[in-house]
Amino acid sequence: MKINHNYDNLVPNYLFADVARKTNEYIAAHPDKDVIRMGIGDVTLPLPPVVVEALKKGADDLGHKETFKGYPDYEGYAFAREAIAKYYASFGVTVSPDEILITDGAKSDSANMSEIFSQDSVVLVTDPVYPVYVDSNIMAGRKILLAPSTVENGFCAMPDESVHADLIYLCSPNNPTGATYSKDQLKAWVDYANANDAVIIYDAAYEHFIVDDSPRSIFAIDGARTCAIELCSLSKTAGFTGTRAGYTVIPKDLVRDGHNIYDLWYRRLSTKYNGVSWPIQCAVAAVFSDEGLKQIDENINYYRENAKTIAGTFDELGIKYTGGKNSPYIWIQCPNGMGSWEFFDYLLENAQVVGTPGEGFGECGKGMFRFTSFSSHENTVEAMRRMRELLS
Amino acid sequence: MKINHNYDNLVPNYLFADVARKTNEYIAAHPDKDVIRMGIGDVTLPLPPVVVEALKKGADDLGHKETFKGYPDYEGYAFAREAIAKYYASFGVTVSPDEILITDGAKSDSANMSEIFSQDSVVLVTDPVYPVYVDSNIMAGRKILLAPSTVENGFCAMPDESVHADLIYLCSPNNPTGATYSKDQLKAWVDYANANDAVIIYDAAYEHFIVDDSPRSIFAIDGARTCAIELCSLSKTAGFTGTRAGYTVIPKDLVRDGHNIYDLWYRRLSTKYNGVSWPIQCAVAAVFSDEGLKQIDENINYYRENAKTIAGTFDELGIKYTGGKNSPYIWIQCPNGMGSWEFFDYLLENAQVVGTPGEGFGECGKGMFRFTSFSSHENTVEAMRRMRELLS
Repeated sequence: MKINHNYDNLVPNYLFADVARKTNEYIAAHPDKDVIRMGIGDVTLPLPPVVVEALKKGADDLGHKETFKGYPDYEGYAFAREAIAKYYASFGVTVSPDEILITDGAKSDSANMSEIFSQDSVVLVTDPVYPVYVDSNIMAGRKILLAPSTVENGFCAMPDESVHADLIYLCSPNNPTGATYSKDQLKAWVDYANANDAVIIYDAAYEHFIVDDSPRSIFAIDGARTCAIELCSLSKTAGFTGTRAGYTVIPKDLVRDGHNIYDLWYRRLSTKYNGVSWPIQCAVAAVFSDEGLKQIDENINYYRENAKTIAGTFDELGIKYTGGKNSPYIWIQCPNGMGSWEFFDYLLENAQVVGTPGEGFGECGKGMFRFTSFSSHENTVEAMRRMRELLS
Repeated sequence: MKINHNYDNLVPNYLFADVARKTNEYIAAHPDKDVIRMGIGDVTLPLPPVVVEALKKGADDLGHKETFKGYPDYEGYAFAREAIAKYYASFGVTVSPDEILITDGAKSDSANMSEIFSQDSVVLVTDPVYPVYVDSNIMAGRKILLAPSTVENGFCAMPDESVHADLIYLCSPNNPTGATYSKDQLKAWVDYANANDAVIIYDAAYEHFIVDDSPRSIFAIDGARTCAIELCSLSKTAGFTGTRAGYTVIPKDLVRDGHNIYDLWYRRLSTKYNGVSWPIQCAVAAVFSDEGLKQIDENINYYRENAKTIAGTFDELGIKYTGGKNSPYIWIQCPNGMGSWEFFDYLLENAQVVGTPGEGFGECGKGMFRFTSFSSHENTVEAMRRMRELLS
């Protein structure tokens, strides 16, 4: 029998493995040095108390006959979907609970969503890119176009009217660049998608970091309901990387090729998935309660403080960057024309600070470097002190 | 843009919807009658205390900085995989923890596993069938062959040497028939798969119900390590339908088309999935602890008692059936040559008992009917009393 030979076309990406190997080699050779990791992509603060209580209450429910829960609804329980719809309303976006589906995280849905579209769909991603959008489509044998995000466009790639795409992946605030689309920029993408009969898969996993008037949802944009699917995650919003939950919004108005897209996706879910655990759906609802939102903001503000410390350092050093304001990521141009890996080595050897070489995220990441705000205050302050010392 | 038009080839299955509709119509017309549901496919007993405690302990871990967990390993935590390997060893089957992957349930993996194989793979399923095997492959545009499970072969379809298949789905103890393959029968499938360079996707979701010497795992069969993937679920073993966890075993010896199948599947997981929640992996390990196994067996024995009551009734009535011994399902031939739906109506109207028409599971389910043992003792006993009254 034959395997799926599209897998042969996957480009192995050793970015994080290489970062870890080089870091560990340095530590082994210099056991006296204090290395600070500023490339952490995972959250580090614990779940807030109200969320932990909801998880435990949900677990207790499963232990009693009267409150036991069997198979969940594929789309998630109504109370959890209603809590999410209310959250959307809090920043002025109207989506119906019937358009929301609770998931085990935005990664799975971003990787699986293309399944319901034709195999010959042309995929467009911005470069640099979260590798899942690319690799999941390579696995399906699809053609992938790249829209360059560069210093020139502020790392906000815009549509090219001369190019046709069917499936467009956008991520704002962006991973890895931290750049955030404005309303006008997103409107241009929505207009392009509607004109091209395309669908935008909009990854809003970092929306909760937004502090200015950048759109928190693509559904803040006129026309998005007829061309967009929104994915969101509690991983970064509420520290759910190890808890696993997210949500997907598919407007009932989204129709392509004579098919309602919500219905198609629901058909896929009911065949290939079995919903999210009861205690975790209880935790999702707790996150979006008034008390939950207050508690998660304490965590987010901690990370925001770190981002400010990092961004402030680069302001001081005159190094150009995106992110840091609406995002836990700070994406810099490597100083003195250094390459991504060259700067990685330079920083590790001279300041014992570890970050992530931007070229691991795509061609347009060459010469770029990513810092994250998920370290502790103390480490962030110390790492930035060393950076200033080294680079000023 | 075009959607995936393979979805147009899905045959709508209204089995459970029709059962619910007919039942509700009858109840509305006869509000005084006491209708007993004997077609429940979901568990009804709560999680055992040791599992609830593990879930709560896991939740507490997430609430403290020292014990907080971020992104889990794609394949699951080692302690949970080791607990499962130890469980396998308890019934004499050796699998390495490195060959086990913790999942959100066997349904997802059974639906997604074919992705790593070529789109032109020929799929073989036994009929009647758990619809997921069929529908997931229709969605991928694959050709599907049916191996008939009939009264003549004891509802244990066997391989036909004159037919070539690439991907073979087997489920034992079977859903819906409750029939269980013997060692010799499974050996014939393993030999067929190895001879045909095929892969068996073996669904062992009901293995914990086995009480005789039928194999609990396909890896109890010589040669299976070079041709089989095993899926298992905690849904029925430990009442996890609303908790969501399962595991998949891919031997490191399984190679096809020059590719290690474990590695291919791991590549898929790392791109399209993000692992199972920490509290739930804690619960998985608790299930397979000594105390956990003792506690889950109390639940399983409750269902077994019901199955005995049902099977005993059909023995008494001289109605032929499979299952009931190694399975929560009892699959009968409808008496007096009645059709599946004819018997459904007859039973509902004359005994106020609801079961599941077998023809909803495939062509070979015509004239068959499924009962389940997930109701209460009291309802099971009363339903069987009515059946004896009606049919003797």
